Amino acid sequence: MQVIEEVLSRIVPTPEEEAKLREVEKELVARIDSEASQYDRRLYARLLGSASRGTWLRYQKDLDVFIFFPEEYSKEEMERIVTSIASRVLKRVEKRYAEHPYVRGEFRGYDVELVPCYAIKDTSYLKSAVDRTPFHNDYVKKRISGLENEVRLLKQFLKGIGCYGAEAKVEGFSGYLCELLVIKFGSFIRVLEAAKHFKRGEVLSLRGDVDEKAVRRKFSSPLIFLDPVDENRNVAAALSLQRFSEFIYAAKEYLANPRLEFFFPREREVSEQALRELLRQRGTALIALSFPTPHVVDDILYPQLRKAQRFFEAVLRNEDFGVVGSAFHVGEKTLLFFELTSTEIPAVKLHLGPKVNSPHEPRFLKKYVGGENTLSRPFIRGDRWVVYLKRKHVRADELLKDFIDAGKLRERGVPSHVARALEAGAEVLVGDNCLVEEALPSLAEYLDPRFPWER
Amino acid sequence: MQVIEEVLSRIVPTPEEEAKLREVEKELVARIDSEASQYDRRLYARLLGSASRGTWLRYQKDLDVFIFFPEEYSKEEMERIVTSIASRVLKRVEKRYAEHPYVRGEFRGYDVELVPCYAIKDTSYLKSAVDRTPFHNDYVKKRISGLENEVRLLKQFLKGIGCYGAEAKVEGFSGYLCELLVIKFGSFIRVLEAAKHFKRGEVLSLRGDVDEKAVRRKFSSPLIFLDPVDENRNVAAALSLQRFSEFIYAAKEYLANPRLEFFFPREREVSEQALRELLRQRGTALIALSFPTPHVVDDILYPQLRKAQRFFEAVLRNEDFGVVGSAFHVGEKTLLFFELTSTEIPAVKLHLGPKVNSPHEPRFLKKYVGGENTLSRPFIRGDRWVVYLKRKHVRADELLKDFIDAGKLRERGVPSHVARALEAGAEVLVGDNCLVEEALPSLAEYLDPRFPWER
Repeated sequence: MQVIEEVLSRIVPTPEEEAKLREVEKELVARIDSEASQYDRRLYARLLGSASRGTWLRYQKDLDVFIFFPEEYSKEEMERIVTSIASRVLKRVEKRYAEHPYVRGEFRGYDVELVPCYAIKDTSYLKSAVDRTPFHNDYVKKRISGLENEVRLLKQFLKGIGCYGAEAKVEGFSGYLCELLVIKFGSFIRVLEAAKHFKRGEVLSLRGDVDEKAVRRKFSSPLIFLDPVDENRNVAAALSLQRFSEFIYAAKEYLANPRLEFFFPREREVSEQALRELLRQRGTALIALSFPTPHVVDDILYPQLRKAQRFFEAVLRNEDFGVVGSAFHVGEKTLLFFELTSTEIPAVKLHLGPKVNSPHEPRFLKKYVGGENTLSRPFIRGDRWVVYLKRKHVRADELLKDFIDAGKLRERGVPSHVARALEAGAEVLVGDNCLVEEALPSLAEYLDPRFPWER
Repeated sequence: MQVIEEVLSRIVPTPEEEAKLREVEKELVARIDSEASQYDRRLYARLLGSASRGTWLRYQKDLDVFIFFPEEYSKEEMERIVTSIASRVLKRVEKRYAEHPYVRGEFRGYDVELVPCYAIKDTSYLKSAVDRTPFHNDYVKKRISGLENEVRLLKQFLKGIGCYGAEAKVEGFSGYLCELLVIKFGSFIRVLEAAKHFKRGEVLSLRGDVDEKAVRRKFSSPLIFLDPVDENRNVAAALSLQRFSEFIYAAKEYLANPRLEFFFPREREVSEQALRELLRQRGTALIALSFPTPHVVDDILYPQLRKAQRFFEAVLRNEDFGVVGSAFHVGEKTLLFFELTSTEIPAVKLHLGPKVNSPHEPRFLKKYVGGENTLSRPFIRGDRWVVYLKRKHVRADELLKDFIDAGKLRERGVPSHVARALEAGAEVLVGDNCLVEEALPSLAEYLDPRFPWER
């Protein structure tokens, strides 16, 4: 229990911090409320989210304020009004676009999100996901009293093991999911104990009578937690199989040997020298695409990078390069890494032609008998014509360079923001040149993954 | 027609050669006949085969003499008697084992095959394939008169393009199939003209009423020629898809541009220097298994070599070596060649483990956490445990050496005679060491195949 005590001392706000937050919250909501009602008397503001539910972590200074609109408002009007209010109340305002527009800014040292939503009677009137938040807030607030620190422990544990956050970057557990898990199982430790027995396709609910098979047919996620305010929604929809599995293993490991490192992992020490040695031992060759990190929110950037990673893996594989694996790093620059069996492959390539005696035979023979890039005369294998050709790219770096130089990347399947960034200025790095200082931690995680609590 | 005239002048025996053959034949059959009837009055000898049918090629000095036995004789008795007769009549006698035992030897400069068979009423009493030969002989002799030279042209053409002979080494057209094709289509040229339209699964017959679909269901060969003396047999059963396709293409090419080279191809000139340069251009790496050629007939050796070739390709591929292709050479030594993308591959290998939370998890983790040949700690990918291991063999030659040194090759799937030869003394050759003088023509054919008429 010493571990838990220590963790709580770091994540539970002191009474002074609590009082401070309430004071700031009150002032902020009052100001936004008054600004809003100047546009239309029916508009009003509310604090929602973890600060409102009492489950925020001490070091997180976030306030989520929702502005409620009647249903006749268009998204554009809501966006205009929220932006205008923010410009008067907040500092350092920036607009964000997710499914729904919202605004970020700062107020007395707190990070504020200002989110427009519709004031609806119940979740059957939903227009967008944010309209559900007020219902989540009501549901949790009614049930969480006394369990706030259990939620905090679970959140910090998930943060520590790299599984906290439903955003695309993490694909982990949302704060609301943490709250529901604690409500369901009663405490942090009981959540972990339950997790030890989770199976892929686990169905959880706060109702008793659930047809698990029907639920599993409807949702394909590794974990399905039916939203108590809307049973057509899986609260854990964003959770990846990877994070689900890591959480299960971490839960087992923690229960067997509870340590502070699960909550507060050490920074991993990475040396270029060690990575160089590891690469030498692996006997593989690194190649990387480096480009300026696109200025888009993570929820757009990360899915595009994963897609780009798969895309360029396919480009390399289609030209017969042996791709051992790949990874990416996002920082000043973004780097897409590909680990290859070799940067260079043989020039020869067996090219399959038409069947002997088929209508395509004459054209094939005309093209390849004495053709420029042939390494043999066309010959017969079984009932097909084949010919050895000299491949255009024997080096992976040249293949990638030529691919990018050919332009029209978006039309050819590269995700839009990555395509634009590559066209603006891509570099192809080979071998030790891939060991870019800022990217070393990502590379270390790819080459020699470590659980955060084992660093 | 000049080409045909020239070919005929080389392959049709002169009247003197014809007379000589008849004289030798007469003496040979008489002596064997008399020897045979001393064992049992019911035994008798006959000349069968192309010499008997008048379709032999001038330079071929082969005489096939069959000794006919009553059906009560066992194979062993037949073998004993034929061997004993041969020892008295022939020189340089050697026993051969195919499906059926027979004896080879020499008589007055001719190569003689002495084959025991049963004297049966019709083909429904067949005991082995050789019992069909007398019926083939009768069938052809009745119909071939006047077409002998057309058969000779077809045989020589097939020889020239590398498609003559039903034996396992060639997998081509038998002499009997040549005779039937000429009987069917009327002349050498008409056979080629017909071949231009052959499709895979072509059904031919000397009867009018054939249900082609039913026939194709029964025989899966690329060409099906129903045996006129036994409709349950496909005369072209030994013909491979490769030889079938080559024949079709050669027929078209010859008809478009008749040249002597189709019948009498030039020897291919092969230089070690040129092969070395070709390998450099291809950018691949050669490796070879060299061993003393097993002393078995080609009909056993060649199928075993093809199987061994596929077997070792699989051994290499299973260990992640990139096999571009393979080939073999049979001479003093036998060499199995494998062309690889590289003789060396990276040490790292992603090893897949059990699912996270499965009953196999603890054993997997125990084995690989801190394990000797690991290149990482076990980690999670999706819902599975994986770990980077150091592979045992990063060099293909060492893999093959260790594979052979481990012994019990036959039990592990290497065909028997190849297994024995490898165990008796295998060498693994790498790179330029593979360019063994005697094997250069086979290597040239693999690296840069040429149609015989285009050398």
